[in-house]
Amino acid sequence: METRGKDMKSLGCLHLIPVPISDHNHDNSISIGLSDTVNDILDWIVETPKTARAQLKIIAPKTPVSEQRLYSLNKHKPQENIKEILKPCINGLDMGLISDAGAPGVADPGSLVVKKAHQLGITVKPWAGPSSIVLGLMASGFNGQNFTFNGYISIKRTERKNDLLKLERDIRNGITQIFIETPYRNMQTIKYLCSTLSNDIDLCLASNLNGENELILRKSISDWKKFNNFEIFHKVPVIFILGRSNE
Amino acid sequence: METRGKDMKSLGCLHLIPVPISDHNHDNSISIGLSDTVNDILDWIVETPKTARAQLKIIAPKTPVSEQRLYSLNKHKPQENIKEILKPCINGLDMGLISDAGAPGVADPGSLVVKKAHQLGITVKPWAGPSSIVLGLMASGFNGQNFTFNGYISIKRTERKNDLLKLERDIRNGITQIFIETPYRNMQTIKYLCSTLSNDIDLCLASNLNGENELILRKSISDWKKFNNFEIFHKVPVIFILGRSNE
Repeated sequence: METRGKDMKSLGCLHLIPVPISDHNHDNSISIGLSDTVNDILDWIVETPKTARAQLKIIAPKTPVSEQRLYSLNKHKPQENIKEILKPCINGLDMGLISDAGAPGVADPGSLVVKKAHQLGITVKPWAGPSSIVLGLMASGFNGQNFTFNGYISIKRTERKNDLLKLERDIRNGITQIFIETPYRNMQTIKYLCSTLSNDIDLCLASNLNGENELILRKSISDWKKFNNFEIFHKVPVIFILGRSNE
Repeated sequence: METRGKDMKSLGCLHLIPVPISDHNHDNSISIGLSDTVNDILDWIVETPKTARAQLKIIAPKTPVSEQRLYSLNKHKPQENIKEILKPCINGLDMGLISDAGAPGVADPGSLVVKKAHQLGITVKPWAGPSSIVLGLMASGFNGQNFTFNGYISIKRTERKNDLLKLERDIRNGITQIFIETPYRNMQTIKYLCSTLSNDIDLCLASNLNGENELILRKSISDWKKFNNFEIFHKVPVIFILGRSNE
């Protein structure tokens, strides 16, 4: 281990804990060893307190709700209160960081907390659990040796077109492309992909991952054009994965 | 659900199951709900049979070893025997796909099996579990809204230089860069990063993730240059994550 100053010995640890990404099958998301550690944590850094309380009931069922202290990140100015939020850790208590769904710090302001923890010398401990990016990538069968997660693609017409052209170029260079979309725009986006990308690109749509109605379909753009049931992806969480059909 | 032909109803399901990435703390990797499903699977597609048997003892302890049937991918010609390997699924039996460590199909030939499963109309079911890429990214505190996993960077001098220049360009565009290295080359690579990248780029090294000696350090290249204990990363599994220091 790295040598630390005496004053640092009493810092708490920041546990980064993925939470379930579907409303069902929670047992499929939570690791066996998590509960001992998690049930002892009383100080939680969260994205949305209401969602967090529901998640804590699942991942830390033995923690007394009345003793839980929730610190929520300022969504509009997440940088502002981070050092304040980490005070329990600075004072020697272990803390947990969770987001609304999946892995904390991967596509949410939690990464700013982790960065600050490193600056303060706080030990950061990531726990295994569900990540829709990895679940989708595994399920796609595309090259997993080289991939990019793009977050959301632009909704502005010109930028969207440019985003898609860049994605196609990267796909042809062997880099699998992953992105997410606001659920009510799914159908529109699938149709847009069909009208913009080449026929020999493959698109994998993974919806309701880990949930009861999980559905994962991979087809070429050419075959998606013949698909007449896009409604099944309307307003459900979908992860979009694009790759080469010939690899 | 998509309408399927009658002949497809009897196909088995292909379960994609992450396995522990460290020799310790297995309970931290395995989800509670996994065991019921996994203990019923007798047909396994694996990367290395010896490693697979050790992993199966952990994730499916109740499956009788004498009844387990292991199908290993041809490492040199992975495309060759894939349809043959999926026969149990075609004949209606559930199968499990595991790699030597972490999430199957993410950085191994398993993705070819998943692709073939889609072509054959076999349902693919990804399970949550450890992925060193996601654990490393969570623990780095870098932007997780846009990141690229690059696999291994080149070892040839000129290509390596070009790889690094491209990584730095992408980092400045806000895209977190992740790669892995052969453990015996870790120290050499860290020193190379220090001599090639700009001082204001941050490097996070995450070693022995999920294991007893887990160590995660994030510093600027400028601070890594002053670090005099690179030996702690010698011959241990390390994931390299690069990002902007100022985000």
